[in-house]
Amino acid sequence: MRDIRIALDVMGGDYGPRSAIPAAIKAVDKYPHLHLYLCGHSQSIHSLLNKQNALSHPRLTIVHAEQVVNQDERPDLALRRKTQSSMRKALELVEQEQADACVSAGNTGALLAMARYILKTLPGVKRPALVSALPTYEDEKVYLLDLGANIHQCSDTLFQFAVMGSVIAREVEQIEHPRVALLNVGSEEIKGGDHLKAAAQQLQECEDINYVGFAEGNDIFSGKADVIVCDGFVGNVALKTIEGVAKLIISKIKASSEQSFISKLLAGLLLPGIKTLFSRMNPDHYNGASLVGLRGIVVKSHGNASTRAFYSAIKEAVKEAQRQVPHKIKDKVEQVLNEENK
Amino acid sequence: MRDIRIALDVMGGDYGPRSAIPAAIKAVDKYPHLHLYLCGHSQSIHSLLNKQNALSHPRLTIVHAEQVVNQDERPDLALRRKTQSSMRKALELVEQEQADACVSAGNTGALLAMARYILKTLPGVKRPALVSALPTYEDEKVYLLDLGANIHQCSDTLFQFAVMGSVIAREVEQIEHPRVALLNVGSEEIKGGDHLKAAAQQLQECEDINYVGFAEGNDIFSGKADVIVCDGFVGNVALKTIEGVAKLIISKIKASSEQSFISKLLAGLLLPGIKTLFSRMNPDHYNGASLVGLRGIVVKSHGNASTRAFYSAIKEAVKEAQRQVPHKIKDKVEQVLNEENK
Repeated sequence: MRDIRIALDVMGGDYGPRSAIPAAIKAVDKYPHLHLYLCGHSQSIHSLLNKQNALSHPRLTIVHAEQVVNQDERPDLALRRKTQSSMRKALELVEQEQADACVSAGNTGALLAMARYILKTLPGVKRPALVSALPTYEDEKVYLLDLGANIHQCSDTLFQFAVMGSVIAREVEQIEHPRVALLNVGSEEIKGGDHLKAAAQQLQECEDINYVGFAEGNDIFSGKADVIVCDGFVGNVALKTIEGVAKLIISKIKASSEQSFISKLLAGLLLPGIKTLFSRMNPDHYNGASLVGLRGIVVKSHGNASTRAFYSAIKEAVKEAQRQVPHKIKDKVEQVLNEENK
Repeated sequence: MRDIRIALDVMGGDYGPRSAIPAAIKAVDKYPHLHLYLCGHSQSIHSLLNKQNALSHPRLTIVHAEQVVNQDERPDLALRRKTQSSMRKALELVEQEQADACVSAGNTGALLAMARYILKTLPGVKRPALVSALPTYEDEKVYLLDLGANIHQCSDTLFQFAVMGSVIAREVEQIEHPRVALLNVGSEEIKGGDHLKAAAQQLQECEDINYVGFAEGNDIFSGKADVIVCDGFVGNVALKTIEGVAKLIISKIKASSEQSFISKLLAGLLLPGIKTLFSRMNPDHYNGASLVGLRGIVVKSHGNASTRAFYSAIKEAVKEAQRQVPHKIKDKVEQVLNEENK
């Protein structure tokens, strides 16, 4: 097995190095071929490594960064002003091919903007997409994209998202012919805007994609498809609505638990399970969301990521690096574009 | 209190008259001033009324209809071919001012198309919208619209939806100055497409609307706003995603209940509560979704509506008829348009 090198922006997210450093130590323990670059304030990293007796770990390298991108910073300003930030350093390591992938729990908008600026899109790819896996009823996974990398409605972009989603489902989940669906407001062919109909037509004609038609919001979890494609506006609303439902249910169970001793007991037994389920349904809490379509691997962990969530994001980055996902996407996009030009 | 007359399409939905007729009987029992027209196959209605000893009820009138609109029928075909359907008859009673409102659990697309064709939009209203109330963490209600009446992205339409949503929240929920938000992918002003930014600008400048800014998917249930406005594509995906999450949770609780006697007991105690919560979160299961912006009241009950759900939809129609919602919307739209033209 070849060595994998991953650059971590350890300053991002609500807990910064306090969740990222323990996750990094756990990851190098688990993967003997993994080398991690820890980008951030060297002093904070130093002291956290020291506490865990990992200061001299041969596969952990500190990369000092003066600046931190704030969670609420405007992406355009972060891009212009935070050239010495941990996020930027981590992306630059990927660009310079010193790292195979980058993981950050920082400001999503800033990460998208910087990743696009520094890594650039793959040849032929119009726009990158944010993708993640959600659980289905049958405990399978469904990849949903775009989750908010861009909000433009364009049939070519949707088509390319379908191609990229298909590659990631095959490479990461080992599904031979991933079933791809387009998210719509009805499964009949007459539904949806013109860009959706055009994308459906393109997908139907593309031999390399196992296109299974339109899916509705309630099909996300039904297992109807392995990959569900939509524009970033719709995907973002869907994902955040799921998060909202999760919070609502948990708050209702908590409220009802205050009614009696029995209900308190029940809620105490039930809440942890429901919380776990929801953290799986909120994918960037779980294993991070990946930015696909770039000349490098970028995994976004949740801003509120615990050590466990950040560790899951590192595992996702390892998988994608091992399977050389950007390379496979590049090949597939080229193949599909060639077919279309025939 | 003045008499209220409501036309019911009793043939729509999965259970047709078997859920609609008992709901109708319950409604006339509850409201002494309510008169219901039961549109559908007179023979089936007759026999169901007979069974419940309600055949000679003075406030239940059978209106025979030869045809039924199927659940999967294409709206344009239903509009053209089903001129003798129960759905059409019920809408015509509203158009002829024999009924104050209409309730149907039938095919949503066909109901939208027929309602728009027969009742027409209110003067000044560009497009009707499908609106419903969802619960918030604090057990308040939030009105979400459009849930799928139209999928066009247009700032004027979003602005009008905000005006209509505001009227319905004030008239039905008695909220004096309903807080109105636009659904977006972030709360910062720079987010979202141009039509959203333009609608935000219009709303900010409109003195009659208590506009509180952008809301994200996770704000739907948070109580941040009393009315959340989006285009019908996004609203439909959000609503159906909520439905999907509900089914997923219930299936997971059921699956985990099979692991032990204790977990079976827990699930048995908990599932009914969760199902009730979800039926409240799926608004057209709960109290129906209203089609607003037309010259008449149309309430859509869920295709899978039980007697209880259909009864709730009738109650919603009664409320809207009592408060003369279309009339109030007309006044408000005129007022706002006049202000804009000043």
